[in-house]
Amino acid sequence: MTRKHIVVIGGTAAGPKAASRAKRLDPEAEVTLLQKAPELSMASCGYPYFVAGSVADRSALLATPAGVVRDPAFFAGAKGIAALVGTEATAIDRQAKTVSWQRPATGETGHLPYDKLILATGSVPKVPPIPGRELAGVATLSSLADADGLRALAGTHKGGKAVIVGGGLIGMETCEALVAAGLDVTVVEALPGILMGFLDPELALLVENHAKSKGAAILTGVGIAAILGTDGKVTGVRLADGRELPCSLVVLSIGVAPNVALAKAAGLELGPTGAVATDAHMRTSDPDIYAVGDCVEVKNRLTGRPMLAPFGDLANLEGRVAGENAVLGDTATFPGSIGSGICKVFDFAAAATGLSERRAREAGFDVVTAVNAGPDRPGFMGAKPLVSKLIAEATTGRILGFACVGPGNVNRQAAEMAMAILGDLTIDDVATADLPYAPPYSLAVDHAIATAHVLQNKLRGLMRGASSLAVKERLDAGETPFLLDVRGPKEFEEMRLGLGETLIPLGQLRKRLGDLPADKSAPIVAYCKVSMRGYEAQRVLEAHGYDNVTVLEGGLAAWPFGLEK
Amino acid sequence: MTRKHIVVIGGTAAGPKAASRAKRLDPEAEVTLLQKAPELSMASCGYPYFVAGSVADRSALLATPAGVVRDPAFFAGAKGIAALVGTEATAIDRQAKTVSWQRPATGETGHLPYDKLILATGSVPKVPPIPGRELAGVATLSSLADADGLRALAGTHKGGKAVIVGGGLIGMETCEALVAAGLDVTVVEALPGILMGFLDPELALLVENHAKSKGAAILTGVGIAAILGTDGKVTGVRLADGRELPCSLVVLSIGVAPNVALAKAAGLELGPTGAVATDAHMRTSDPDIYAVGDCVEVKNRLTGRPMLAPFGDLANLEGRVAGENAVLGDTATFPGSIGSGICKVFDFAAAATGLSERRAREAGFDVVTAVNAGPDRPGFMGAKPLVSKLIAEATTGRILGFACVGPGNVNRQAAEMAMAILGDLTIDDVATADLPYAPPYSLAVDHAIATAHVLQNKLRGLMRGASSLAVKERLDAGETPFLLDVRGPKEFEEMRLGLGETLIPLGQLRKRLGDLPADKSAPIVAYCKVSMRGYEAQRVLEAHGYDNVTVLEGGLAAWPFGLEK
Repeated sequence: MTRKHIVVIGGTAAGPKAASRAKRLDPEAEVTLLQKAPELSMASCGYPYFVAGSVADRSALLATPAGVVRDPAFFAGAKGIAALVGTEATAIDRQAKTVSWQRPATGETGHLPYDKLILATGSVPKVPPIPGRELAGVATLSSLADADGLRALAGTHKGGKAVIVGGGLIGMETCEALVAAGLDVTVVEALPGILMGFLDPELALLVENHAKSKGAAILTGVGIAAILGTDGKVTGVRLADGRELPCSLVVLSIGVAPNVALAKAAGLELGPTGAVATDAHMRTSDPDIYAVGDCVEVKNRLTGRPMLAPFGDLANLEGRVAGENAVLGDTATFPGSIGSGICKVFDFAAAATGLSERRAREAGFDVVTAVNAGPDRPGFMGAKPLVSKLIAEATTGRILGFACVGPGNVNRQAAEMAMAILGDLTIDDVATADLPYAPPYSLAVDHAIATAHVLQNKLRGLMRGASSLAVKERLDAGETPFLLDVRGPKEFEEMRLGLGETLIPLGQLRKRLGDLPADKSAPIVAYCKVSMRGYEAQRVLEAHGYDNVTVLEGGLAAWPFGLEK
Repeated sequence: MTRKHIVVIGGTAAGPKAASRAKRLDPEAEVTLLQKAPELSMASCGYPYFVAGSVADRSALLATPAGVVRDPAFFAGAKGIAALVGTEATAIDRQAKTVSWQRPATGETGHLPYDKLILATGSVPKVPPIPGRELAGVATLSSLADADGLRALAGTHKGGKAVIVGGGLIGMETCEALVAAGLDVTVVEALPGILMGFLDPELALLVENHAKSKGAAILTGVGIAAILGTDGKVTGVRLADGRELPCSLVVLSIGVAPNVALAKAAGLELGPTGAVATDAHMRTSDPDIYAVGDCVEVKNRLTGRPMLAPFGDLANLEGRVAGENAVLGDTATFPGSIGSGICKVFDFAAAATGLSERRAREAGFDVVTAVNAGPDRPGFMGAKPLVSKLIAEATTGRILGFACVGPGNVNRQAAEMAMAILGDLTIDDVATADLPYAPPYSLAVDHAIATAHVLQNKLRGLMRGASSLAVKERLDAGETPFLLDVRGPKEFEEMRLGLGETLIPLGQLRKRLGDLPADKSAPIVAYCKVSMRGYEAQRVLEAHGYDNVTVLEGGLAAWPFGLEK
């Protein structure tokens, strides 16, 4: 029997997973992993925590759960895989079925034959074409070398000023890391808000407010025109509007681009996103070549369209599928992504799964949404707040997306709703879901279930709700609805909208209808802390003939435009 | 227009929810809530934490998230509901459509007319028919009065000995509570293990070991014959095997029985479980009477059979459905339960959703299972261990059940897998699920996904696994497999099976085949800390012709029968 030759290019996440899976399924196979960097199996999602210093030991980023560093000796001994580090794949000869490689450190070159080739060439950080990007003090955070460099820079610049260009997931994680490392941080985001690829603005603004409360400055809706420097070193940035921010450190985190150079040179088909195209078996246009991880595009399971999903978890799942298929022959499939993600931003978590409202509308869905705020567990168990948004298809009720932010247990909410989306569940399904409950872990009516109840109530016409953003737009347009706060006087004293609202505690509302506008068709916006009582108020008022009452969804807890204290 | 009269009997969870929903949907309706106890809307799942003292303020168990105690004034003012406390419903006249009531404190009686009646009469603690059950110092933990009483008893018996009869969910929560309150606690469970209604024994044993490590004594497989006393006070218990345990406090927590007295007297149909039977609208055999909460049986969505599911979360969901149907006319349905639950036992959480292996087999399913152990997040983020068990239907791969225990983030795992079961997902669906991932929140390959990978590998014949229990049974039967520990020497030194095993670190295995049995068909059991390396070892050995290698699923992390240190 001839031993099968499997060559894997790329050693971060998808590559090692594919190599390991292939070798486990075909222990006879000769599996070789080519890795340009000196390290293997880096936990790249941990880089921000390494930069922050909360992960002190660099080797922890490279170790198995049992604490063994995954170096070539580990791959040889434990896995039976030849892992060649510091070894760059330079070309693929698809006719000869060989991969050429070189070792920059020694000048060695060579080539390897393959029966099946797996590309896991990853991504490269996007660098905006602006003057000054070559200056010392300009960094990215994509590779372990980047992480080493940025950690060193954070140390030498402690107490200094840093500008982070880009307020996406990596940008916000880096923001927290550099604040933790003792720098004075400004995030500059060209889009109107942070985390816009991920969250709708109502929720993103809450995260932005939280980051600001932790000492980060955040400028949105303005790009960077140039990085300024003296003697080859960063001294500041100039914004597109002409403002200059002095700083000695600039981190570019405007995203990553699939690293397709090798695939492109080999004539493999790229998809509409510019990444390597594969079928559900993770097979490229060449039946002997698979591609996985950040260098590929995958199917968005909700829109059916190709998308980039450069996430470490999917890299592993894709690698597992390609590793199996390379030795067993296309027995495994990867169904695609729904765009699930979660991100720690100081004491908040921000998570989303499925489509945001904006993306769902862009994809042509007829969309209904609800925003809900509430505690993550009973008050007597140390509740922390959550704000979530549920996006569903109007015609079918199918859940299209769910986002959740706050200091509460976002993690459970987002994970359960990702599974709900994967199971094609509807609003009604979620509204009656049987989830594990005990006071230390959730509310009796789980937060996501309560959010589904809100959306049910809206769809049934029982609740007429509007998001914070929609209400703010009405106010900004000069409309002057009667703002009705139905909380208690003590709550009101502690914190309020401060926009001329009237306080009528819910319990008094039935008796104080005289304090409301005489015209029962005058617009009223009712709310409380989270708008449970706001909703009750709307039902009470409608029973008394008021026909233009809107509930501010999520109440004050979801109001991101500032509160009076 | 005639105002509709809605009467709700029972004011703990399902009743208030039903009343509130009905009133919101029909603000014209006259909604009356009859409550026997003096309090309303008690967070009864919080009683153990009140007994423990970790919830100091009793009113927190009765308050809204905004801190308002839900008393009759609150129900009147905020909800428009007449809540009559201290008022016991004594009879239902279905012809006249009235409910008779009495107030024991004042001797008042009366009756209320109803158009629709909602029964939420709850459950009563089962009391075993043993001598001594009337002694002072014998308690249950079902009502707020019970909680008050047990908290007081725990205070006066501090430093004394308590016996808890029953090691189910409430029993184990009470165990933790009384240990926290400073008592010396013994749990006596007649079944062979604790939490048996909920977990299969492999996982239940891990929880039992943990509770013991926290100072609780746990006796299983033995019932209570009598409670012993002097001068009307508890002095101990006598076990069925004759042993006597001295104690001054006994808590009976052998479960609850649906409180169906009123329904039965009114001639409403009871189901095979003995609880009130309802249709999917929560409607009883009388079209004008609904029933919700602990007094009803619901459909098990996996077996299709009626089940008791006396859980606070379902009580709320059922109440919401009945409240709507009572005023809108059977527009809402409750689909039933999958038996999701979670329980805090000291520093462990124990959760299950769907069917345990035992229950799945009892229901006639052809079942496949896998046990998996692993960290809940990367080591560099402060990982804590999890052990889980996945139960699927062999023919279709559909997930039937999932259980998870440990100090790690069980909550996320159980919630996401409950949704997976509700979405009819298969092993393959879970194995490629796109879940939110970042290092503070989960592993790149989420624990439940990894468990699905293990089961996939077993089903594909790649991994031949056996649970701890199956391996223990082989050893107990006198079999002497070659026990192969493939961890590192340092790990071995810290902790090991201690059953004559051989240590060959995975990395050396390919070179040390000579240390294995010469007969390549001799039974070998391979394992490591969690059996990832154990699985690799099996693959290596099979490639070298060893054809009788079993992986100990979950490795030492899932071995509940004691380790040598």
